[in-house]
Amino acid sequence: MERCLLRQVREHNGSEVTVWGKVLVVRDHGKVLFIDLADRTGSVQCVLKGDHPQFAEAQKLTPESILMVTGAVQDRSEKNRSDGDNGALEILVSSFSQSAAAQTLPFDRDADINIDTLFDYRPLTLRRSREQAVFRVQMSVAQAFREYLSGEGFMEFQAPAIVGGDAEGGAEVFGVDYFDKRASLATSPQLYKQILVGAFERVFSVGNVFRAEKHSTSRHLNEYTSMDFEMGYITDHTDVQAMLEGCVRHIVRQVADRCKNHLTVLEASLPIVPETPFPSMKLTEAQVLLSEKYGISCEGEKDLAPEHERVLCEHAQKETGSDFIFITHYPTETRPMYTYDDADDPGYTKGFDLLFRGIEISTGGQRIHDYSTLIEKITKKTGIADPETVFSFYLQAFRYGMPPHGGMGMGLERLTAKLCGLQNAKEASMFPRDRNRIDVKLYDE
Amino acid sequence: MERCLLRQVREHNGSEVTVWGKVLVVRDHGKVLFIDLADRTGSVQCVLKGDHPQFAEAQKLTPESILMVTGAVQDRSEKNRSDGDNGALEILVSSFSQSAAAQTLPFDRDADINIDTLFDYRPLTLRRSREQAVFRVQMSVAQAFREYLSGEGFMEFQAPAIVGGDAEGGAEVFGVDYFDKRASLATSPQLYKQILVGAFERVFSVGNVFRAEKHSTSRHLNEYTSMDFEMGYITDHTDVQAMLEGCVRHIVRQVADRCKNHLTVLEASLPIVPETPFPSMKLTEAQVLLSEKYGISCEGEKDLAPEHERVLCEHAQKETGSDFIFITHYPTETRPMYTYDDADDPGYTKGFDLLFRGIEISTGGQRIHDYSTLIEKITKKTGIADPETVFSFYLQAFRYGMPPHGGMGMGLERLTAKLCGLQNAKEASMFPRDRNRIDVKLYDE
Repeated sequence: MERCLLRQVREHNGSEVTVWGKVLVVRDHGKVLFIDLADRTGSVQCVLKGDHPQFAEAQKLTPESILMVTGAVQDRSEKNRSDGDNGALEILVSSFSQSAAAQTLPFDRDADINIDTLFDYRPLTLRRSREQAVFRVQMSVAQAFREYLSGEGFMEFQAPAIVGGDAEGGAEVFGVDYFDKRASLATSPQLYKQILVGAFERVFSVGNVFRAEKHSTSRHLNEYTSMDFEMGYITDHTDVQAMLEGCVRHIVRQVADRCKNHLTVLEASLPIVPETPFPSMKLTEAQVLLSEKYGISCEGEKDLAPEHERVLCEHAQKETGSDFIFITHYPTETRPMYTYDDADDPGYTKGFDLLFRGIEISTGGQRIHDYSTLIEKITKKTGIADPETVFSFYLQAFRYGMPPHGGMGMGLERLTAKLCGLQNAKEASMFPRDRNRIDVKLYDE
Repeated sequence: MERCLLRQVREHNGSEVTVWGKVLVVRDHGKVLFIDLADRTGSVQCVLKGDHPQFAEAQKLTPESILMVTGAVQDRSEKNRSDGDNGALEILVSSFSQSAAAQTLPFDRDADINIDTLFDYRPLTLRRSREQAVFRVQMSVAQAFREYLSGEGFMEFQAPAIVGGDAEGGAEVFGVDYFDKRASLATSPQLYKQILVGAFERVFSVGNVFRAEKHSTSRHLNEYTSMDFEMGYITDHTDVQAMLEGCVRHIVRQVADRCKNHLTVLEASLPIVPETPFPSMKLTEAQVLLSEKYGISCEGEKDLAPEHERVLCEHAQKETGSDFIFITHYPTETRPMYTYDDADDPGYTKGFDLLFRGIEISTGGQRIHDYSTLIEKITKKTGIADPETVFSFYLQAFRYGMPPHGGMGMGLERLTAKLCGLQNAKEASMFPRDRNRIDVKLYDE
């Protein structure tokens, strides 16, 4: 008999169906036994009477066990529950077979659990409704990112993870044994997406990047998913900001449409996206604001501290009704070699960070497109006298005509965490890698 | 003035526009000069008369240079060309400015070039219309793969690249320095997608995988893009075959819809997809066929050689009108530890390869879902006495209830190469990694 998905059960009231799913809970009332069964589309109550030949077998069923059940769909005898779409129905079991028996879960399915338990038992904690909701939201975010950019004429590409050098020049990298040579893991698709602007004008990618940073914080992962785009023929960084803003609006709209139930499970609220452009201010302006309005003295500092980002987000929400705020014009010395300097604001760059709910979720800006300017900047930044000796592959694109361009990168896990109201970006990684963990803990305690 | 995309130029006949693009070619007729300009949406001819104040400057323009051009759209004076949508129009230049000058390309833009030139100058060869077509097709394949599976209730996930062990057990892996520990690069998302079947029932991923195999052939890459899915609640491997078949049909349909012009550029033909299910035969049956019909003696061999795959594809096309053929039931000893054995056919597995245009493009099948069967099989396959010491993380999923399941993996580059009629899978990788190359050659010759 063909499998009936649980969301389709109600179309078969009065008929016999075969359903397949996992046991959520068994309630044994002595003369009658109830099994709540779930598949990817919903759940349903299955009923066995005391005289059923498999009654004793059913009494031994444990949660997470896998069952195939055949029985008649009927109106539910006790209608005091309203959970799910099948709350008014049940299946009167004629027979069932078990494909896998399960041990009892080593944690309470619905209780709060600590972060070590969450990751030690990751294959199992991913079965919790809270974790299911997080990754359904994440899938919608990635899909919406691709949809928006495809619609704007961007070409998708798959960036390589094994690279010869370090794109960001300065970030700590993981080394790889590449046959008898040494290679490293990409910290960003940056150089490749710039190269591709010369070929496809507009490109984007969603892929894994790797940072060998030793710090262990709630905002960092050693392997994460970077959503990147790069676009040619821009006037300046504000074109990139406008594209990112459109993309973020689309992501929030899609999450609102597709993930309502998931946000409810997570007790998370939708971001406030203003009708008007996102608020935007220069770093130095932000520092004056922090000092004058919030008594936080940080003028002259080269970057924002986490606390500053938090206060600026609160400010933006209160004053402009936006959960998003751009901070632009970070100092040249803190930005990578390919960053475009603002001639009208010497020492500062045509770049931005996008802050959301207290944290930087994206970094971007205009890039240098002129070959000799780039050569000069690389030498200044890295100390390499002849950049062609190290960056010849990348530099080809600039020797043979590159349009003015810019782009941005955005961490999928960090954005997902903030959308879902999670405390730690690691909770938005299915299989987080940090200094102490690759699936299992790397060190005994 | 706002940028006008070249595909929109015809909407402005009689008016002034500003366009931005790269120079394809400059034709200097002495008293008049033509510049063919291209952006991502098309191309147009721009005209300067001999008395134009920038005429001398225009004479020095080189292909690949980046120009912003302002001028009036008018009917074309010489209408002897029919290339592109703007063949009947031209722009009479009032002014232009150059954002980047280009050196002359180190190869002929439209000629055949050898594979070393193709990759030595990859940032530039990706600007050729042939390479543009290949990667537009590739983008459509990846998008169609995701579309189809999302529509079938599959959940997308991002598989980790840094892993503690080797999923396939036997494939050669690249080692990674992970802080003061050793890790390796994933050869497949296999164990993760199985774990996720326990949580989400149906999952898919598109991501980079890594094989440290030393052989250098036209079908192998050391880093490639693996398109994978895994599905729960199957009866056997034929459910996986049916899902893959639906997916391949959708991919071919989408490539047909979206990539007609690209296939023309590549002189490639669309695959023949039969109305009926794809032909399918057991390995032993295929070997009898090869022997009896084609005089190729290979009965008793444990796998098909490339030559055998080629002949079987020709056979399928001739006899059944299909460019695709499934070969099932490979021997247990040649398949990974998680492979499901066929009780009705001892020594053979409920698995398949999908062959297309002479080559295996996908491998899949049913997986073991029973904990004790899996433990036994791992020990037999790997020699590890207690698999829990090595695979405890993976095995959690099986201790706590796993549905019967199966899935498949398919290399994006290999499929793209075959769809585009390329000789070498590397040509379908933007930045191919092999033993001798990471962007630049690793060894002097």
